[in-house]
Amino acid sequence: MSTTTRIDDLPLREELRGKSPYGAPQLDVPVRLNTNESPYPAPEDLVRRIAERVSEAARGLNRYPDRDAVVLRTRLADYLSRTAGLRLGPNRVWAANGSNEVLQQLLQAFGGPGRTALGFDPSYSMHALISRSTGTGWVSGPRTEEFAIDTHAAVAAIREHRPHVVFVCSPNNPTGTAVSPETVLALYEAAQEAARDRRGALFVVDEAYAEFSHRPSLLPLIEGRPTFVLTRTMSKAFGAAGLRLGYLAADAAVVDAVQLVRLPYHLSAITQATAHAALEFADTLLGYVEELKAERDRIVAELTALGCDVTESDANFVQFGRFADAQAVWRRLLDHGVLVRDNGVPGRLRVTTGTRAENDAFLDAVRAVMKEIAE
Amino acid sequence: MSTTTRIDDLPLREELRGKSPYGAPQLDVPVRLNTNESPYPAPEDLVRRIAERVSEAARGLNRYPDRDAVVLRTRLADYLSRTAGLRLGPNRVWAANGSNEVLQQLLQAFGGPGRTALGFDPSYSMHALISRSTGTGWVSGPRTEEFAIDTHAAVAAIREHRPHVVFVCSPNNPTGTAVSPETVLALYEAAQEAARDRRGALFVVDEAYAEFSHRPSLLPLIEGRPTFVLTRTMSKAFGAAGLRLGYLAADAAVVDAVQLVRLPYHLSAITQATAHAALEFADTLLGYVEELKAERDRIVAELTALGCDVTESDANFVQFGRFADAQAVWRRLLDHGVLVRDNGVPGRLRVTTGTRAENDAFLDAVRAVMKEIAE
Repeated sequence: MSTTTRIDDLPLREELRGKSPYGAPQLDVPVRLNTNESPYPAPEDLVRRIAERVSEAARGLNRYPDRDAVVLRTRLADYLSRTAGLRLGPNRVWAANGSNEVLQQLLQAFGGPGRTALGFDPSYSMHALISRSTGTGWVSGPRTEEFAIDTHAAVAAIREHRPHVVFVCSPNNPTGTAVSPETVLALYEAAQEAARDRRGALFVVDEAYAEFSHRPSLLPLIEGRPTFVLTRTMSKAFGAAGLRLGYLAADAAVVDAVQLVRLPYHLSAITQATAHAALEFADTLLGYVEELKAERDRIVAELTALGCDVTESDANFVQFGRFADAQAVWRRLLDHGVLVRDNGVPGRLRVTTGTRAENDAFLDAVRAVMKEIAE
Repeated sequence: MSTTTRIDDLPLREELRGKSPYGAPQLDVPVRLNTNESPYPAPEDLVRRIAERVSEAARGLNRYPDRDAVVLRTRLADYLSRTAGLRLGPNRVWAANGSNEVLQQLLQAFGGPGRTALGFDPSYSMHALISRSTGTGWVSGPRTEEFAIDTHAAVAAIREHRPHVVFVCSPNNPTGTAVSPETVLALYEAAQEAARDRRGALFVVDEAYAEFSHRPSLLPLIEGRPTFVLTRTMSKAFGAAGLRLGYLAADAAVVDAVQLVRLPYHLSAITQATAHAALEFADTLLGYVEELKAERDRIVAELTALGCDVTESDANFVQFGRFADAQAVWRRLLDHGVLVRDNGVPGRLRVTTGTRAENDAFLDAVRAVMKEIAE
């Protein structure tokens, strides 16, 4: 009786027809260096603390969570105050299920149909994807051949397109490139100037990888700039990709604004409890970050010594090339048991910093593949 | 230097200006019967099981969660297969952070700008709110004076408005009213017929309160009807409002479709682990549901005996009235230490079924308030 229904038989929105879900392949290989995860499992002390806090939350699981996540936002504000150069209260911090949900809420409030967002590609592809899924138009701004943002070219793009939302990812994913505060401020000013007849433009600096940078955080720039938003995540520096906890810091009015579009009770009591526990272990986890930074610098040095064209990195990953056929190199590395990421940047691949042993395995595989290619 | 920025100073979307965030007041009173939570805390055995499963997940917290939540979806499919009259596999089930996120994903895929959703008000207000926040037009369909859906009037509304998405909440929040399978099928057929030139209309039955109903689940109706979607939640029957776990059952093609719009890794490893643990305790938790159903029936009987106009309920709450000034009665009940919900239905209030002691306190408060009003 039943024939199989295909997705195209459904009354799906036209712009979704023929699309595929976003996401890196989840392959089972010995060395997974493709999604910028931390290679370090949570220490047992932290696992115990999570179990304690979650047990406490679970006893009240029949009740809705604190809708405004005030305790968690206070802890996140404390963390930023302590590490990122600006004292903040919880009224200037907002949290959601991953920075993706934070970005979605920002676009629902400040983007959407009839509005445009601009970012500098190649960058974190979810900026464009979430813009589109919220009905926001997307404009791809320029980068130099070295993947930097050229201030003049970027300002010109902003003046031309007058976007409602601007994304700057620093350090940038997938290239690793950090952006200077001078450039960020020039872009911010240009975006406000271009949109001065409509109360300015939302300016979002995505600092998902800030803790791995050689440079200080751009957080202090939010001060006195009510449309300047900084986003962060616990996925990377906190080694908690499985937790899905992203957050933003901005003017308190921006925090009020996202509450108009957030789904009520969006952040579970269990997530709040787990994030709270991880924040208690910030010093331990930031210690791992220091180890990863040293390993990242070693990968940059060794790939360069191997003759690769390596992009300077302020993140926990390294972009390298230049290959005539990056996809073929990706596949050969996989044959050697090492999974890296092909982000579609021509001639380049991206490798996440792993443990020392994983990085050695990666570097050995690169050596072997380069030999294979040369033959 | 800094003057306070107000939300209206920001480049917020015009339609959000002047709006307030959705949500019931979170007040600290002795008897909270306002948000349809279970009054029963998780049993200690379940708390221990959650701690075990979460500890296991926390050890791998550095890795992204299973993006497709296959294990959890398998357990949810098993639960529905066992309790709701239709055998299902995980390919026909999808889960997200609360049924709100499920509904948002459905509207992103099948609603959105240029499209219209129709529901029968008064109903779960998030249907209209999420429609609007996804850019979907909203049409409020009719109910009878007794809050039932009249098939002829409802079919006429569907024929008139030709919606892309139809919502039927059964049992309906905030009235408690269940909808018969005959009515549901008539509306489904009318919606498909009205939209036959565009591959039909998505038909969403929100069964958040199904486990409390006198009637069997409408789940078997999804069979052979690829645009028929049933949504559920673990917030109510599983006593897990703090967990934020909603799910849907539908044709596998619908599950494929929501994956085009879901944020990648939307469901944390911790949430998946906690939900898994709660599903292992389904029998215990459904035992609580039986107690609550008996208490619900007692509330209906006692309120009726007190002379209230009570709407027949298939949910874990009861709508009652009829008051000249429902808001005044709400405030007087609060003065007696009992928090119920004013959903804006003229002359009516909604009370959640609590423990026997809480329900006694509520009924005592109603008696006292009715006496005060009569004086």
